Amino acid sequence: MSAPLRLGIAGLGTVGVGVVKIVRNHADLLAARAGRPVVVTAVSARSKSKDRGVPLDDYAWEDDPVALAQRDDVDVYVELMGGEDGPAKAATEAALRAGKDVVTANKAMLALHGQELAEAAENKGLSLRFEAAVAGGIPVIKALTEGLAGNDITRVMGVMNGTCNYILTRMENAGLTYDEAFAEADGLGYLEADPNLDVGGIDAGHKLSLLASIAFGTQVDFASVELEGIGAITIEDIRQAADMEYKIKLLGVAQMTGRGLEQRMSPCLVPDRSPLGQLVGGTNMVVLEGDSVGQIVLRGAGAGEGPTASAVMADVLDIARGIRLPTFGQPASTLRKARAARAAIAAPYYLRLQLQDKPGALAKIARVLGEAGISIDRMRQYGHLETTAPVLIVTHKTTRAALEEALAGFSATGVVEGTPVAIRIEAV
Amino acid sequence: MSAPLRLGIAGLGTVGVGVVKIVRNHADLLAARAGRPVVVTAVSARSKSKDRGVPLDDYAWEDDPVALAQRDDVDVYVELMGGEDGPAKAATEAALRAGKDVVTANKAMLALHGQELAEAAENKGLSLRFEAAVAGGIPVIKALTEGLAGNDITRVMGVMNGTCNYILTRMENAGLTYDEAFAEADGLGYLEADPNLDVGGIDAGHKLSLLASIAFGTQVDFASVELEGIGAITIEDIRQAADMEYKIKLLGVAQMTGRGLEQRMSPCLVPDRSPLGQLVGGTNMVVLEGDSVGQIVLRGAGAGEGPTASAVMADVLDIARGIRLPTFGQPASTLRKARAARAAIAAPYYLRLQLQDKPGALAKIARVLGEAGISIDRMRQYGHLETTAPVLIVTHKTTRAALEEALAGFSATGVVEGTPVAIRIEAV
Repeated sequence: MSAPLRLGIAGLGTVGVGVVKIVRNHADLLAARAGRPVVVTAVSARSKSKDRGVPLDDYAWEDDPVALAQRDDVDVYVELMGGEDGPAKAATEAALRAGKDVVTANKAMLALHGQELAEAAENKGLSLRFEAAVAGGIPVIKALTEGLAGNDITRVMGVMNGTCNYILTRMENAGLTYDEAFAEADGLGYLEADPNLDVGGIDAGHKLSLLASIAFGTQVDFASVELEGIGAITIEDIRQAADMEYKIKLLGVAQMTGRGLEQRMSPCLVPDRSPLGQLVGGTNMVVLEGDSVGQIVLRGAGAGEGPTASAVMADVLDIARGIRLPTFGQPASTLRKARAARAAIAAPYYLRLQLQDKPGALAKIARVLGEAGISIDRMRQYGHLETTAPVLIVTHKTTRAALEEALAGFSATGVVEGTPVAIRIEAV
Repeated sequence: MSAPLRLGIAGLGTVGVGVVKIVRNHADLLAARAGRPVVVTAVSARSKSKDRGVPLDDYAWEDDPVALAQRDDVDVYVELMGGEDGPAKAATEAALRAGKDVVTANKAMLALHGQELAEAAENKGLSLRFEAAVAGGIPVIKALTEGLAGNDITRVMGVMNGTCNYILTRMENAGLTYDEAFAEADGLGYLEADPNLDVGGIDAGHKLSLLASIAFGTQVDFASVELEGIGAITIEDIRQAADMEYKIKLLGVAQMTGRGLEQRMSPCLVPDRSPLGQLVGGTNMVVLEGDSVGQIVLRGAGAGEGPTASAVMADVLDIARGIRLPTFGQPASTLRKARAARAAIAAPYYLRLQLQDKPGALAKIARVLGEAGISIDRMRQYGHLETTAPVLIVTHKTTRAALEEALAGFSATGVVEGTPVAIRIEAV
């Protein structure tokens, strides 16, 4: 049996503690599978004295993660502090300079600096791996990079923020308003310190940009992800969608088009009988589509101690087994700069608007749609408020440009109150 | 860029042709991902003259797969002929003797000779890989062997025979009898030459035994899989199950128990809202459960040209990238001989029986169950035939031994007509 693989772990939050537990509790299993022992030699975190429920006395302590990353007795630097810059990036760079492989769960750092860090790693023949950064315990990076490597990937989709899916599920099943469901998720500790990372779609957008890089052989380009959060979703829309056999999900979609790479993270309607439509609560789902394989659906816990630590260990064991792969599946130096395409792919849309209760109002709306070249699949006026009536429209496939023309046209009619709701319907 | 990886393909049926197409159509993509070209140099099949819709003139032809496997210009022998023994095994052995890596979709050969072949490969430092042998395009071997390598696997389940799931789905949705649905599947070409491989659960059992070996670090042991096919399933059972919010699936389950390894491939009731319950048609699903990761669900096409060729290419690209792993995740020489446990795990059961329409009949049945130590969750007598009435019973968790005692007891009462139906209810 070969020499042990020695881990230095920076960050002893939920995931770091989970990794320590696996290494301690499964020493024999890991050694059998890796062909060598896997051990922790050193750790680093903010507070040395905090009781984390696992014994840490066997491990050297470093206050400074950069010092940890450079230790002679560390083979793999495990970055679990998070944060796109700051200590996480400094320590990752220090580790690579010192010739250490790096395993991380840090999606923000990779979404913003992935290209630069991958090149730094590959220039030195080192591994920089991030299975834990996307969809928690689901081995989606491996599935995409290796399992589907024979495919031209045609589309990648995912519900990759469990907190948002929890909020939407609670609105749907318990009739909570967005604010009530948000408050409940907050009370349960589901939200990031900056909640906009969750509900604004940023966290999930980071993940989507990493998947897109692997799928399409392009440099990770988070800045080009079209982001739209779930804050504007109402119970009314969830109910109307359900009535038409749809669910509303915060869905990420990445697709290569003739005009470039389109990356979207936004609320979408998906058929309620599809795997994505059936996903409830905090679970994650990623859908990978390839020209040969068709559609592959992966489902599992997207966060939490055990699942995320499991993903960290998948990368650690690859390194222990001598499996080396470029960070994004092909050498970082060969990744193309993606041309960002926005709104290149047409889709049907769900529209809901408040129409003034006047003769001819509906006809004006229909005319605006016609003039924008949008044909109507279904249209329904229902109920009545004091002076307005809600109108629900499902369009046939249309471009976003045409849709925006129609939305501008609606307000020019003078018969539409407030801002119309427009939600894309994604064929899944 | 390194030297090309040269494939020799034996078997040019659906899957072989699919592999040829991927290699021809995606040369650049494969080279970018593998860091080297992947090419076909030689092929072998029964008929040289048959038009297979792909040009084969660039490749050397061998009538004899053993000769193909030994060619100097072949690095990887791709075994796609099938069959547990005969030419497939002879050529695989010849390839390994000649120092070639082997990639195969041949589940029967590995289920019966996997230990011996893996040892032969590993003794020479060669790869023997079989992603395509289990669940078609779903990268489940990789997910289990690598993606969940940090987990103590607690259970592996799967619907891994698309033909059986197609038949059950058609019975359910179209109200066909088993014989009608079977005939329809046959007409569509879904059945193996020996249909019992499908509907008898043998094919799916082969796959389950391969997953169990990886999951539990045991030598593949197909002979110990408890096999029960779908031939006895009736529309009546499907309807009664649906009425209680269950579906009937041919489900494989492998689990390590205190008494040894339990492997079952049999019809089971699963909740209709679970991912397994929602699976319709020919699609496959594998559920992997680990102590850290929780439950991971993988869904995709279980057969067909593209999906299966995609899985073959995943293995080929691993080899091209220099990724080497033991066939079953840890060296074959370290795999333990599994002790086979049968019926070690208790479960609730669905029972349906025809009761003679006599006073006290139901009481007799209830007494038999009580005497076997089986408690009743639900019991319902409904409808009426001429002289009998069907009775439906859902038990609480019970052992198979107790269940068999009760079934024997039923016939001793003299009030039960025919053979009672007993189907396990699996908690998924």
